[in-house]
Amino acid sequence: MSSPFPLPDPMRRALALARAAEAAGEVPIGAVVTKDGVIIGEGENRNRRDHDPTAHAEIVAMRAAAIHLGDFRLTGCDLWVTLEPCPMCAGAISHARIARLYYGVGDPKGGAIEQGPRLFAQPQCLHRPEVYGGLAEAEASALLRDFFAARR
Amino acid sequence: MSSPFPLPDPMRRALALARAAEAAGEVPIGAVVTKDGVIIGEGENRNRRDHDPTAHAEIVAMRAAAIHLGDFRLTGCDLWVTLEPCPMCAGAISHARIARLYYGVGDPKGGAIEQGPRLFAQPQCLHRPEVYGGLAEAEASALLRDFFAARR
Repeated sequence: MSSPFPLPDPMRRALALARAAEAAGEVPIGAVVTKDGVIIGEGENRNRRDHDPTAHAEIVAMRAAAIHLGDFRLTGCDLWVTLEPCPMCAGAISHARIARLYYGVGDPKGGAIEQGPRLFAQPQCLHRPEVYGGLAEAEASALLRDFFAARR
Repeated sequence: MSSPFPLPDPMRRALALARAAEAAGEVPIGAVVTKDGVIIGEGENRNRRDHDPTAHAEIVAMRAAAIHLGDFRLTGCDLWVTLEPCPMCAGAISHARIARLYYGVGDPKGGAIEQGPRLFAQPQCLHRPEVYGGLAEAEASALLRDFFAARR
């Protein structure tokens, strides 16, 4: 079942990047960074290809956007990602000063936003984005389910 | 006051990297990754130079070590860093399967190991390194204190 409303373009692009990651043998997760509605950074999971333990889709997209802007802070930018970010990515989102976080589906096993450490709710947290979750539950969870089913 | 025991060589190297970061106008934090006692990756804080919100010393060192090994996991490797890691870096340490984490001084404001979210104690956490903190309290805290005092 698809979403009951048309998916925003950045989330559609993040889902396409997730499919590209899957085709390359990576966990199917994709992300984009937008500023004023325009995509300025894209990323997909690249751990295996790049030999990089940090190369989650969100990290790749934020690094690309920061290079594009020539600034290590992404003030006023939004991040769109197919899966709820893990602690590493949530920490990076806070460091980057992302304004709004949109994600496709929650991750009970590894998510750090609405479950587990709930990093943005920690008193230590210096910057909290606005958070909009569950934007593409059917699409994003089907991608992950199919990926892990095919590997069993 | 310096440490009451000789600092291990990897921690001495991490402190030298922290000083190099400071000389480049970055927050003075340094890190190295060792495998079987040999340094295979080095990093210092590079946020401003690289326009990279993720370029903490630990991330830079782990990415270098992973490229060196040709593997996105640093199984059996140790990480040495001058300051207690933040949530982003703690998450990356877990993803990378670091065996032992050694750090110079605790960070009450931003640390995620012994304070705040205590990420390795979260039930979600899939890999916890052995942790040895407070190895260079005097040296690492003096570096940070002098850096922030000079900027006031």
